[in-house]
Amino acid sequence: MPAIAPSYFLDPGVLAETLDSMRAGAPLVQCLTNAVVTNFTANVLLAAGASAAMVDFPGESGDFAALASSVLVNLGTPGSEQRASMREAVAAATAAHTPWVLDPVAIGALRIRTSLAHEFAAASPTVIRGNPSEILVLAGSGGGGRGVESTDSVTAAAHAARQLALRTGAVVAVSGPTDLITDGRRSVHVHGGSPMLTRITGGGCALGAICAAFLPAHPDPLVATVSAHAFYSAAATRAEAMSLGPGSFAPAFLDALHLLSPEQLRATAVLS
Amino acid sequence: MPAIAPSYFLDPGVLAETLDSMRAGAPLVQCLTNAVVTNFTANVLLAAGASAAMVDFPGESGDFAALASSVLVNLGTPGSEQRASMREAVAAATAAHTPWVLDPVAIGALRIRTSLAHEFAAASPTVIRGNPSEILVLAGSGGGGRGVESTDSVTAAAHAARQLALRTGAVVAVSGPTDLITDGRRSVHVHGGSPMLTRITGGGCALGAICAAFLPAHPDPLVATVSAHAFYSAAATRAEAMSLGPGSFAPAFLDALHLLSPEQLRATAVLS
Amino acid sequence: MPAIAPSYFLDPGVLAETLDSMRAGAPLVQCLTNAVVTNFTANVLLAAGASAAMVDFPGESGDFAALASSVLVNLGTPGSEQRASMREAVAAATAAHTPWVLDPVAIGALRIRTSLAHEFAAASPTVIRGNPSEILVLAGSGGGGRGVESTDSVTAAAHAARQLALRTGAVVAVSGPTDLITDGRRSVHVHGGSPMLTRITGGGCALGAICAAFLPAHPDPLVATVSAHAFYSAAATRAEAMSLGPGSFAPAFLDALHLLSPEQLRATAVLS
Repeated sequence: MPAIAPSYFLDPGVLAETLDSMRAGAPLVQCLTNAVVTNFTANVLLAAGASAAMVDFPGESGDFAALASSVLVNLGTPGSEQRASMREAVAAATAAHTPWVLDPVAIGALRIRTSLAHEFAAASPTVIRGNPSEILVLAGSGGGGRGVESTDSVTAAAHAARQLALRTGAVVAVSGPTDLITDGRRSVHVHGGSPMLTRITGGGCALGAICAAFLPAHPDPLVATVSAHAFYSAAATRAEAMSLGPGSFAPAFLDALHLLSPEQLRATAVLS
Repeated sequence: MPAIAPSYFLDPGVLAETLDSMRAGAPLVQCLTNAVVTNFTANVLLAAGASAAMVDFPGESGDFAALASSVLVNLGTPGSEQRASMREAVAAATAAHTPWVLDPVAIGALRIRTSLAHEFAAASPTVIRGNPSEILVLAGSGGGGRGVESTDSVTAAAHAARQLALRTGAVVAVSGPTDLITDGRRSVHVHGGSPMLTRITGGGCALGAICAAFLPAHPDPLVATVSAHAFYSAAATRAEAMSLGPGSFAPAFLDALHLLSPEQLRATAVLS
Repeated sequence: MPAIAPSYFLDPGVLAETLDSMRAGAPLVQCLTNAVVTNFTANVLLAAGASAAMVDFPGESGDFAALASSVLVNLGTPGSEQRASMREAVAAATAAHTPWVLDPVAIGALRIRTSLAHEFAAASPTVIRGNPSEILVLAGSGGGGRGVESTDSVTAAAHAARQLALRTGAVVAVSGPTDLITDGRRSVHVHGGSPMLTRITGGGCALGAICAAFLPAHPDPLVATVSAHAFYSAAATRAEAMSLGPGSFAPAFLDALHLLSPEQLRATAVLS
């Protein structure tokens, strides 16, 4: 394992093509997510051009995971019935080769979700997306953040992210002012975005759903995940310029996800 | 049963009177609905001038159904506790002669909700509202759509809608670019609306709640349901003209539901 | 017990200092609240400058209540798993001396929540916040309102509020066009606000969360609760002036919570 994964050059034209392909495919994203952000997450998917289906209880979540284009498993409020639903969906997604994203929200001090996150990380997720504190916990090298907020920087979690990627086979995305996406061998940083995403609830959770939406749009999950982050950041930058505070930011962000063209993404994305 | 139900002439002045009567009555609408759209549904009801109560768990939902002005049963995320709650509410609404609306969300491939929808359709709902694919499944002549999205047209579901109405005694409303409302003998089409309602989550689900709000406002459930659809469509048309995308559409739509006057409804509704 | 608690003079400068202190502390508010308003409540907290954590199921809610800055227990949709979660959180908050707020939503005719509200009122909440009908029921002198809406005035509930405060040791806040906050010995009225808060869902529920956010910011819970109400009212007044209806009011309100400065609060608050 290299101490530092080499940075990977990705032509912004590929981002534009992947966005175009996502919209053309209109992927049906099944979300098993937390009770706080279901509405915003569905609206983010619809605004971006995907379809959303929040099929999330035992007896249906497995059947649907076999039909869905991709699946999001977000551990924000994992009550007992939802834990059963998630296990059913993960098993069905794996059997059907449906790509899926794991978002280990607020793991660390909270025992049930932390144990569940380790269980799911071992079940071959396509992507793991979290904040630096969450990625450090999942990699076995941190104690967790403050509720849903990270107390660690993206840089501090970079080594853990690569280790986690190599161990699980997942693309690992670490969200922060600059995002890091790595598969353990290649790493890409996505710049831009807006601090307003931390002043609305679901700013991170909905990014996990957008990652799921992009996975069917490109055969390389690293490229799909980078494209998802660049798209999300570009829309957030645009929305911040049109808003007074978090209240006006949220609808402006949904508008921007709807209106941002592949060409605009190509022209404004900043990767390194 | 006629192969084609005759179209029914409805004076737009009746729509205006029914809206006026709904607002004057401020009906208390009990919603047993899916986790994704509870917030938006409550806000739609409040903006329109109704009251919303999301009393939805066993031990309380039956008691409340006896007090409520009307009840909505929406099958979008029917977990086990909610299924028990819905059965309790349907029984109490029936016993108390409280009008109620069934919204059979995404039935077809998903077994639990499909079985539940057939059970409730046989329990004398006042109105059944769905997209064309859902109505075809409930009438026994279709396989279902793509998640919450219809893969069939309103026209393709017209015959099934009339059959379903005659079999269940319910008014059946089929939503699409043009809506069809029928009681099996009479049929009305409502024109207008906005495709933006398909780019926000809950655009169809909240229409079910508005149907429930209008039921106490007119003795003929067909007239009440047509009035609800015409009101909803007129507000959507107005909101689309004031928005850039789905993000700005949602608040503009709530404003329009609040501001649209009976006179404006009378002047702009297009029925056939 | 005095028949009429003397009004209490509170310098508006104290409101400004308490707001400043709340934002500097960025309290982590754990919300056990109803399914309809989780998203809006979290967004209100984030806009105001607090942090939100909706950790709300058995096995985690107690652990988190020991870490949180304060806790909100809102009885809007208390299903069986949430009731267990609330009991766990209340016990842990009490053991850890974490301040907590009880919001007895829609008690009266609904038996499960009414019984639960009496149980929690006896468990030494720091603050009890409700509408007049809810406070009357909890004090033992009323039958309840119409769903979540009050059918009694703040004035009619003033005596009951003081009795309830003296009996439970809690600060009691009664919400209405003018809010009353009392600890049984001292009483303060907060003027202002906006009727638009009754045309969006969660207008009252999120105020309970803001009370929780302010509790760690001042040692006197009466002062903290008055400051929370004055802040909330000032933001609502400002938002109403910038909105066309309830749809545009909601984002304008979140912006106002984010933008309102301590100095603006000091200059515009009206207490009596």
